Amino acid sequence: MIIQLNSAISPTQKNELIDELYNNAYGVQEVTTKEHSYLIAQGGKQMDIRSIGNKPYVQDIHVVQAPYPLVSSSWKEQPTKIHLNDGVQIGRKELSIIAGPCTVENEKQIDEMAKFLVTKGVKLMRGGIFKPRSSPYSYQGLGLEGLKLFHQTAHKNGLQIVTEIMEQNQIEEMYPYVDVFQVGARNAQNYKLLGALGKVDKPILLKRGFSQSLDELLHAAEYIFTGGNEKIILCERGIRTFEKSYRNTLDINAIPLLKQKSHLPVIVDPSHGIGLRNHVSSVALGCIMAGADGVLVEIHKHPQMAVSDGFQSLNFSEFSQLVENLELTFQLKNKIKPFY
Amino acid sequence: MIIQLNSAISPTQKNELIDELYNNAYGVQEVTTKEHSYLIAQGGKQMDIRSIGNKPYVQDIHVVQAPYPLVSSSWKEQPTKIHLNDGVQIGRKELSIIAGPCTVENEKQIDEMAKFLVTKGVKLMRGGIFKPRSSPYSYQGLGLEGLKLFHQTAHKNGLQIVTEIMEQNQIEEMYPYVDVFQVGARNAQNYKLLGALGKVDKPILLKRGFSQSLDELLHAAEYIFTGGNEKIILCERGIRTFEKSYRNTLDINAIPLLKQKSHLPVIVDPSHGIGLRNHVSSVALGCIMAGADGVLVEIHKHPQMAVSDGFQSLNFSEFSQLVENLELTFQLKNKIKPFY
Amino acid sequence: MIIQLNSAISPTQKNELIDELYNNAYGVQEVTTKEHSYLIAQGGKQMDIRSIGNKPYVQDIHVVQAPYPLVSSSWKEQPTKIHLNDGVQIGRKELSIIAGPCTVENEKQIDEMAKFLVTKGVKLMRGGIFKPRSSPYSYQGLGLEGLKLFHQTAHKNGLQIVTEIMEQNQIEEMYPYVDVFQVGARNAQNYKLLGALGKVDKPILLKRGFSQSLDELLHAAEYIFTGGNEKIILCERGIRTFEKSYRNTLDINAIPLLKQKSHLPVIVDPSHGIGLRNHVSSVALGCIMAGADGVLVEIHKHPQMAVSDGFQSLNFSEFSQLVENLELTFQLKNKIKPFY
Amino acid sequence: MIIQLNSAISPTQKNELIDELYNNAYGVQEVTTKEHSYLIAQGGKQMDIRSIGNKPYVQDIHVVQAPYPLVSSSWKEQPTKIHLNDGVQIGRKELSIIAGPCTVENEKQIDEMAKFLVTKGVKLMRGGIFKPRSSPYSYQGLGLEGLKLFHQTAHKNGLQIVTEIMEQNQIEEMYPYVDVFQVGARNAQNYKLLGALGKVDKPILLKRGFSQSLDELLHAAEYIFTGGNEKIILCERGIRTFEKSYRNTLDINAIPLLKQKSHLPVIVDPSHGIGLRNHVSSVALGCIMAGADGVLVEIHKHPQMAVSDGFQSLNFSEFSQLVENLELTFQLKNKIKPFY
Repeated sequence: MIIQLNSAISPTQKNELIDELYNNAYGVQEVTTKEHSYLIAQGGKQMDIRSIGNKPYVQDIHVVQAPYPLVSSSWKEQPTKIHLNDGVQIGRKELSIIAGPCTVENEKQIDEMAKFLVTKGVKLMRGGIFKPRSSPYSYQGLGLEGLKLFHQTAHKNGLQIVTEIMEQNQIEEMYPYVDVFQVGARNAQNYKLLGALGKVDKPILLKRGFSQSLDELLHAAEYIFTGGNEKIILCERGIRTFEKSYRNTLDINAIPLLKQKSHLPVIVDPSHGIGLRNHVSSVALGCIMAGADGVLVEIHKHPQMAVSDGFQSLNFSEFSQLVENLELTFQLKNKIKPFY
Repeated sequence: MIIQLNSAISPTQKNELIDELYNNAYGVQEVTTKEHSYLIAQGGKQMDIRSIGNKPYVQDIHVVQAPYPLVSSSWKEQPTKIHLNDGVQIGRKELSIIAGPCTVENEKQIDEMAKFLVTKGVKLMRGGIFKPRSSPYSYQGLGLEGLKLFHQTAHKNGLQIVTEIMEQNQIEEMYPYVDVFQVGARNAQNYKLLGALGKVDKPILLKRGFSQSLDELLHAAEYIFTGGNEKIILCERGIRTFEKSYRNTLDINAIPLLKQKSHLPVIVDPSHGIGLRNHVSSVALGCIMAGADGVLVEIHKHPQMAVSDGFQSLNFSEFSQLVENLELTFQLKNKIKPFY
Repeated sequence: MIIQLNSAISPTQKNELIDELYNNAYGVQEVTTKEHSYLIAQGGKQMDIRSIGNKPYVQDIHVVQAPYPLVSSSWKEQPTKIHLNDGVQIGRKELSIIAGPCTVENEKQIDEMAKFLVTKGVKLMRGGIFKPRSSPYSYQGLGLEGLKLFHQTAHKNGLQIVTEIMEQNQIEEMYPYVDVFQVGARNAQNYKLLGALGKVDKPILLKRGFSQSLDELLHAAEYIFTGGNEKIILCERGIRTFEKSYRNTLDINAIPLLKQKSHLPVIVDPSHGIGLRNHVSSVALGCIMAGADGVLVEIHKHPQMAVSDGFQSLNFSEFSQLVENLELTFQLKNKIKPFY
Repeated sequence: MIIQLNSAISPTQKNELIDELYNNAYGVQEVTTKEHSYLIAQGGKQMDIRSIGNKPYVQDIHVVQAPYPLVSSSWKEQPTKIHLNDGVQIGRKELSIIAGPCTVENEKQIDEMAKFLVTKGVKLMRGGIFKPRSSPYSYQGLGLEGLKLFHQTAHKNGLQIVTEIMEQNQIEEMYPYVDVFQVGARNAQNYKLLGALGKVDKPILLKRGFSQSLDELLHAAEYIFTGGNEKIILCERGIRTFEKSYRNTLDINAIPLLKQKSHLPVIVDPSHGIGLRNHVSSVALGCIMAGADGVLVEIHKHPQMAVSDGFQSLNFSEFSQLVENLELTFQLKNKIKPFY
């Protein structure tokens, strides 16, 4: 049961309400986000929820059975739209195309790419600064100075940036320079980081773990929400299977299922999802047609010379063609009566 | 190396050619299909293939490195189109929609559904007669009399039929009543059955096994081809993974990869691929957009009353809507310049 | 519910009994094996089974909830022991060591190996004659003449043989020369073959499929049992996972679970289960310690020269050491009080 | 190439050595642990390593091809033994039995259990204080005060403790009360945490991630080692597969492979590895027989009343029996000549 509280509620009133729930055998958890205050009541006896809903300081009440009530679509039937600065939006009839290099390499790279992305109508640029690399001997990214450079160069061109954060300690130093924090697959169940990102007032792009179930992904999102941040974007990026002819198995089924189970936007990362440059576009279009709200794509001016992941990065010409087709596909998808 | 022989080649000429290959250390296998005769030469020393290609009785020669040369796209760069009776075609700019019940139940069911399918422009009807069921206590299908009924009722309405064969022994009795033989996931590596279906002059719809790699699927197709049958349709139907919120993980990556590796048509089975009725259409459209040549869909007049798989069968109204959307999606896909 | 019938039951009595079950809303299936006759009654109303159990022509009756009642341990709490000729036994306090080449190559190979195996106390020799190979261009085995040779050479040395059958059509011709029929992973859900092997009066060694669940494996065994053959040996041989540093993931968990769920003997195939010669022995011993009734091991006089699977075959010296250690391990395991 | 430096090396000498490596095109990384100083040189031209090895300030030099040189067995052929306080050791002919509750509940629980464990000869007690739970609404553990209680109660009884750390920020506060830090499956690729634990002078028990490959696990260990901590214990705890009849698939193959690839001790967690109380002991014994250096087992006085994971916890009597059998199994294993 989710009880959304009126901001005018007094501490006394809140305590009375919590007591009433306790008396009906509910466990109660308070959640305060940047937008709202909630009580999450679980367990408990059957009761007439209208008696609570009618209280003047209760704004809304819903019985939600899902184990992740706040991110569940049982609570909010309308898909959520995430608002960024400058009117940029993610979700609900907005096609989000997020593109950029796997790794931020230098100012010239970012500046050229940003100028190019602007001509394609892209508003969000991705780029790796702190790279979670399997080997301690691999290049680990440019670090904070690189982030400042990335942020400055992108913003100069009118773009906002998405970049990966690897641990709670980085939040403070990264905060001024990040528009959307990305949580990578390796941290998908790093609950301390998720909770800490709940304190942030910027959107979180949450990638699915290598073998994370959809229910676990939604639980992870619930950690961010109960931490205090409602701005969450789910990202399907491929799972691990026995198949060896590509990098990961992009889980197209996840798209309609996440959209049905949750009100959060769902984007896909076809670059990691298949990991083969000449097939990224096919699966990107397929995922948009299956209902995804956007894509996260790795591009590079000269993929064969990229510091990392060149084998799955599109060049500018391939990306231009993809953008055009993504828009056509998204238009068609929106014309179609939804199935569920 | 594939050497396609002229039909006018004499036995002596063929033996001379084989000897020449042996002398160059090649292993040689003769393959004779309904359409052509081939020599498959593997291993061997590097040699000037023009000396062979120029022989009057050699129609074509290609160096193909793939371990499944005959189904490989290195050999035939143009996608193959499979021809059925009455001008029905599968592959290459043809959208194939194959629909029908999981299990053929009775004449009335088939007749009603056939009439409905005709109004939707569908030309191929699927239906299970011999059902491979995990439990020996489950319903095993109507058997041969059911097949005759299915064939007669479908053909009366102008439809051709696709149905599953479970073993070599059934070929002869099923042959007169089947238009396309389906090999199910459980028999995907039943090489004796695959080889025997090579002797048949009707198309084979070959489903991927539960955890069959794409390379293994193409090897399985090569068994049918070397057996003598060039008319093969590949079908992605979902693989087994750790995820439990749906039935199988539909492998969208398989679509562009199979299209790149092979010249054979690739269709998908979204009904088994996700196994949830309200999401079948989303993934079906996604797969067409990703490049599939068609879909195989389970439908039922009253899914909740189906003998089997009702939970993943579309009703007639859902299917009507899907057909319309599949056509729009296929048109869009064909307008797009291919990526590879 | 399993009702084991007395052999003296008359057709009239049997029909009366079936009618009584029908009247209590049961579905009834008759199963007649080489050893016994059963009625399997499923569904139905709650009834006092003693009224049935007390009938003179009913030998035994058990309520079994498992969907695979006949192979379930709810029916037979004592593990089954499979009897072969010459007093050879598999299961229940018998350690079974089955060894031999991946592929039978020639008489000398078999004769040398048989003589060696006899010195190690081995009584069952494995060897591939009809090889299910992923590629149609790979060596497919010696065929029927090879089987005769294998059988004759092994028996001359006092060994019985286990070899793989690939389809129903082979049963008749293979029958005289086979002591234990092996069903391979690729045919683990080839229900027609399983049912046909139910008609055979020789034991069946049933391998788990590449991604077959344990429940599906037990259902497959139930197909053989309801077909009429009670002599079934289950074999865990590794499953497909994401891990690439070995061939398959040997599922040690399957051992205690299969032993708990079923009364059938459970052996393991460490050769395919890890696929790396220098680790076969470690996992073989681990599996015996975890409760397996035996092992199926590939050996070769000169592994590096084997026609197939040399990379996972033990040489004679490694195998000698393994046999000794298997015996010590099995003795220790038998001293330990069972856990469940 | 690993160059182990003599502690007497001067800064000038070190710089000269690094320059020499640079001049031979090597990348060089300095690693300083609590025990030693190393230069890790990768890439580079072929050179006579004796010229380096002969320098007085170079203690040892090895060419190691493995991408995780410091944890690789190519460098240290003898297995590593980890030394804890009070003479407790892990690895190399020592059987390690680590046992305790999933979650530390209260002082009485710990005290009773510690007294019991002492009678069984156990020296290391596990217990969860900070619990990584999939849901933010689940019990998250007792927190720091609970850790102090756990530490005090265990030490009072002569036991050292193993407990999970979830993020870098916890190191300082947990440090005084922890004997072995555990990194859980969800943090197996949290490289920031791994690197930070490199600064700690206490052993790290590193669990394999849900779908982490063995190579990735060894890379993760290399992060700890290059961070400065050589005391690493690898722990196999089951991987995610399609099989649903148990919790995880315990990867017995991982044991011999990790022992071959690395010099680090390898223990297994059968409690999570199968997740079924009545089968924990079978697989535990199997893993010891396959070469594991120890086990990590969840126990509870009254499993059915445990705060968490009661379904996979052994009671005291079951554990007593297991300890006895583990010792017998370990003795047998040590008598056997190793296979590789």
